[in-house]
Amino acid sequence: MSQIENNEVLQCIHDRRSVRRFQKKPVSAEQLTCLIQAAQAAPSAMNEQPWYFVAIQKRELIEQLGQLLADSGEDPYYGASLLIVGFGRREAHSPITDVTLAMANMMLAAQSLGLGTCWIDYSRHVFNHPQFAGLQRSLGVPEGYFCVGSLIVGVPDEQPQAHTVQHQIVSVVG
Amino acid sequence: MSQIENNEVLQCIHDRRSVRRFQKKPVSAEQLTCLIQAAQAAPSAMNEQPWYFVAIQKRELIEQLGQLLADSGEDPYYGASLLIVGFGRREAHSPITDVTLAMANMMLAAQSLGLGTCWIDYSRHVFNHPQFAGLQRSLGVPEGYFCVGSLIVGVPDEQPQAHTVQHQIVSVVG
Repeated sequence: MSQIENNEVLQCIHDRRSVRRFQKKPVSAEQLTCLIQAAQAAPSAMNEQPWYFVAIQKRELIEQLGQLLADSGEDPYYGASLLIVGFGRREAHSPITDVTLAMANMMLAAQSLGLGTCWIDYSRHVFNHPQFAGLQRSLGVPEGYFCVGSLIVGVPDEQPQAHTVQHQIVSVVG
Repeated sequence: MSQIENNEVLQCIHDRRSVRRFQKKPVSAEQLTCLIQAAQAAPSAMNEQPWYFVAIQKRELIEQLGQLLADSGEDPYYGASLLIVGFGRREAHSPITDVTLAMANMMLAAQSLGLGTCWIDYSRHVFNHPQFAGLQRSLGVPEGYFCVGSLIVGVPDEQPQAHTVQHQIVSVVG
């Protein structure tokens, strides 16, 4: 590659949308492995790799999590059949940056596999809530980790339009 | 695409390294535009697009920034000829997530163009330091923004090995 034209990476970046409607088809184990490996390929400060992911495909559990803090009857996970929750090690140098970069890799890897994703911040409020401290442990998250965010993943059942760019976003000092 | 084999996006994700040695060749204006457009294609909470980037190609300015807080004689920007500093709007819903996801897009876009990058956290300490508050303004950053991080960008002059994966990083609840 290395050209701008016919560049599948640029195409993938520009084609990605936040998807909130999914077909009933499951994400395969092979696809999930692919996403996790993409996350692991992200950089991290001092190579600490301070990330941990919980991939939940058990529909009832996703629903239960969705009900813990949701004010309304709305499902914060939009009925997705796969939820990947990202955690960072509290004592690491830059856990939020590192876990977010790893999750960005997952979003683009998913797009390249024909899967849609949407970043769901709601999980942070659940998993970092003192009342639900036992949840992380029960899902195998090591001690000393906190939730950075989550992704819902699935086969898209919608094709949202691209957002228009809202404002000037760059100064070039050449 | 959408297959795992011969998937240029997955390839790009796995081939990316943090690069700290660059050839003297400049990043072209066309390549820089490409990186900024990739950033703009990232998702943001409530579609706020709460990001702003300063792309600095003026070598003396990069050097000056590098000397503001560096303890030692080391150059925190590794002699790079392009520094892209990312800022987020303080009052936005999730500025750190949004700007980091945008910068992740830039890192992979750069990789796809044959460019190397490295996330440099040092810029946060400079730009968010009260002593240097005037700096942001002088570089055109709107009021109410703070620095999330930065990337050095250039034509790689090294091919670092991939890091080995350090530990178990996933629980699957199926």
